[in-house]
Amino acid sequence: MRCCDKLEPSEDKRFFYVPRALSLSKHRFLSLWVGMNTAATNSVNLPGPLPLDSGRELAGVEVAYETYGALNAARDNAVLVHHALTGDQHLASAHPVTGKPGWWERMVGPGKPIDTDRFFVICPNVIGSCMGSTGPASPADDGAPYGMRFPVITIRDMVRAQVALLDVLGIDRLHASVGGSMGGMQALSLAANWPGRTGRVLAIATTARHSAQNIAFHEVGRQAIMADPAWQGGNYYGSDSKPEKGLAVARMAAHITYLSEAGLTDKFGRELQDRDAKSFGFDADFQVESYLRHQGISFTDRFDANSYLYITRAMDYFDLADEAGGSLAQAFAGAEGTRFCLVSFDTDWLYTTSDMRAVVHALNAVAAPVSFVELSAPYGHDSFLLDVPELDRVVEGFL
Amino acid sequence: MRCCDKLEPSEDKRFFYVPRALSLSKHRFLSLWVGMNTAATNSVNLPGPLPLDSGRELAGVEVAYETYGALNAARDNAVLVHHALTGDQHLASAHPVTGKPGWWERMVGPGKPIDTDRFFVICPNVIGSCMGSTGPASPADDGAPYGMRFPVITIRDMVRAQVALLDVLGIDRLHASVGGSMGGMQALSLAANWPGRTGRVLAIATTARHSAQNIAFHEVGRQAIMADPAWQGGNYYGSDSKPEKGLAVARMAAHITYLSEAGLTDKFGRELQDRDAKSFGFDADFQVESYLRHQGISFTDRFDANSYLYITRAMDYFDLADEAGGSLAQAFAGAEGTRFCLVSFDTDWLYTTSDMRAVVHALNAVAAPVSFVELSAPYGHDSFLLDVPELDRVVEGFL
Repeated sequence: MRCCDKLEPSEDKRFFYVPRALSLSKHRFLSLWVGMNTAATNSVNLPGPLPLDSGRELAGVEVAYETYGALNAARDNAVLVHHALTGDQHLASAHPVTGKPGWWERMVGPGKPIDTDRFFVICPNVIGSCMGSTGPASPADDGAPYGMRFPVITIRDMVRAQVALLDVLGIDRLHASVGGSMGGMQALSLAANWPGRTGRVLAIATTARHSAQNIAFHEVGRQAIMADPAWQGGNYYGSDSKPEKGLAVARMAAHITYLSEAGLTDKFGRELQDRDAKSFGFDADFQVESYLRHQGISFTDRFDANSYLYITRAMDYFDLADEAGGSLAQAFAGAEGTRFCLVSFDTDWLYTTSDMRAVVHALNAVAAPVSFVELSAPYGHDSFLLDVPELDRVVEGFL
Repeated sequence: MRCCDKLEPSEDKRFFYVPRALSLSKHRFLSLWVGMNTAATNSVNLPGPLPLDSGRELAGVEVAYETYGALNAARDNAVLVHHALTGDQHLASAHPVTGKPGWWERMVGPGKPIDTDRFFVICPNVIGSCMGSTGPASPADDGAPYGMRFPVITIRDMVRAQVALLDVLGIDRLHASVGGSMGGMQALSLAANWPGRTGRVLAIATTARHSAQNIAFHEVGRQAIMADPAWQGGNYYGSDSKPEKGLAVARMAAHITYLSEAGLTDKFGRELQDRDAKSFGFDADFQVESYLRHQGISFTDRFDANSYLYITRAMDYFDLADEAGGSLAQAFAGAEGTRFCLVSFDTDWLYTTSDMRAVVHALNAVAAPVSFVELSAPYGHDSFLLDVPELDRVVEGFL
């Protein structure tokens, strides 16, 4: 997610932006990529149907992705960055709708912690999303958008599609799998389910299972979307009205969980918005109201409501221990050859340090090499996207 | 608010229920009340227009209330209990819509901590609400419901109406003013603004000012209601459809803040609702989803969406220090003759122990007698409504 623009006083824009002319949809010519450096969105059509955790399978899966840096001749310098709930493949390139810088430009680029002079960085859009990978807005067999006919997917299904992408790209083993929030869930899932596919896992501000409170906040968002008459049971594609109001409310509710109470107080407190006194009305009197409304409304320009339903569902279903018969240690049984680095933030009340410690203990139990650090940052969960120099050093050091 | 039924394993129903036959609308015969014991809702029509903090005034104000126990001859044993956001005057009598026991029956009754054998307990419905006191559903001068023409009110306005009620009832000085959550705000406001009117203040799980995060959660709820087309700009009275979906979403979002993360985990965890495996659909797979949906839907039967807008606005505006030129100590400058007892809960993340400590420090600064206790209870903010024996002892001891 990219949700804290107002909290980030300045963006580092040194990273060059490569125009989108190099887009090579459905390319198969992998040799082309060795030595090439581009930030355009590409996509592959996976060769076979994708089996899903639900027992169903998804045919004709497209995976959109961006790459930065160059794959070396040994094909062993690839870093897969997994995005968060409302993120996308525009890791370090301008977003095509908003025009804003990529969501992790501060972290990814030449000389940056994820150094594109060293690494071939791949950022795929997760399936179920709406930025080019197959999701509920994509056409089903009958040519009409899936809508709610799209199968419910899991975090592991998202990763399964990414592993298939790596197969297409001819990358047997990643240098590292990296992600924050839902991105971290994917990194942990990759390590647990395809342990040979990555040498390192860097999971930031994440969890091995969604808690009751996590599920509750997502359920509020889903109900807000489904309560919007414009949702029309998910069949709003091509319609004049989309469930923008419901989606905005969902985003507002979720957004509060991305920020710390102290961060909100420091930034907004009870400051009024463009006025000297309370209006005694229902306008956005307080800055925090204005900020939240802006976050909600602007989100609807770039995100599909059905994708929000499906991806939040996948996160709520996420429980690595449950996948392994109830034991989180068992989930990582084959991952002792992977090096782990886990990072939490002290003000993150969405995925807490305690959640991360549970992962550390499970990795200890299977003797996997793991380092863990709790960083102090005032911003809450969104700290992984913001200016936290300590995080930069941890990422750079670990990779 | 009464929002944790499933979290409360058993209700104490020993308190007798007095049928509603004694309702004396607009009574003026105060002598009648001396020695009378009733739990029926009564109401008074305040003698003059009520001046409001906005500068407007509200004419023809009706205040609905219930009483328990008997006013003594000295008229000095009255305890005013202020209800919370979605609470009402049905403190210890069955709710007329839901049929459920009163929201604080465990605390109020003969021999209970707020002992109706000793005290004359008054519980008024706040103005702006929808249980008999004047609010947005009440008729305006033109006979049609106010809707959004109702003036924006404050916590102090609510208390001003209650002080007027006390005038009508001939009660110059309360034995105590008691409340939790928004009820605690009213108790603090009474002490700050009418310090001679109460001998004691017992404020539980509350705050002297709404934080940015508090405001943010309320704003989500308001936007959910206003996004519902059935809201119709607030003019839904008499219409076939009411903004029930929006109100339910608002309630769901707020409800999460009333419970602790640990409480949700202990009660629901990731347990599935009436099924052995995930459905891979959007039904309420998890118990916590089912619970939240129930809380949202059942709330709409008993609460008016416009009242929810007005009362949350009043809470967001609440900032005792701001009322006194920026100094919380100054707000309590005349209250040194009042005894205070403040209670917080260690798992309450809505109004935290830190919020309460700020009040304690302000009271210390004006040398008001204050005792403060942080109680340990697993339920979060709603602990003040639930089975916390330590709270019973504190309430009983203080009164």
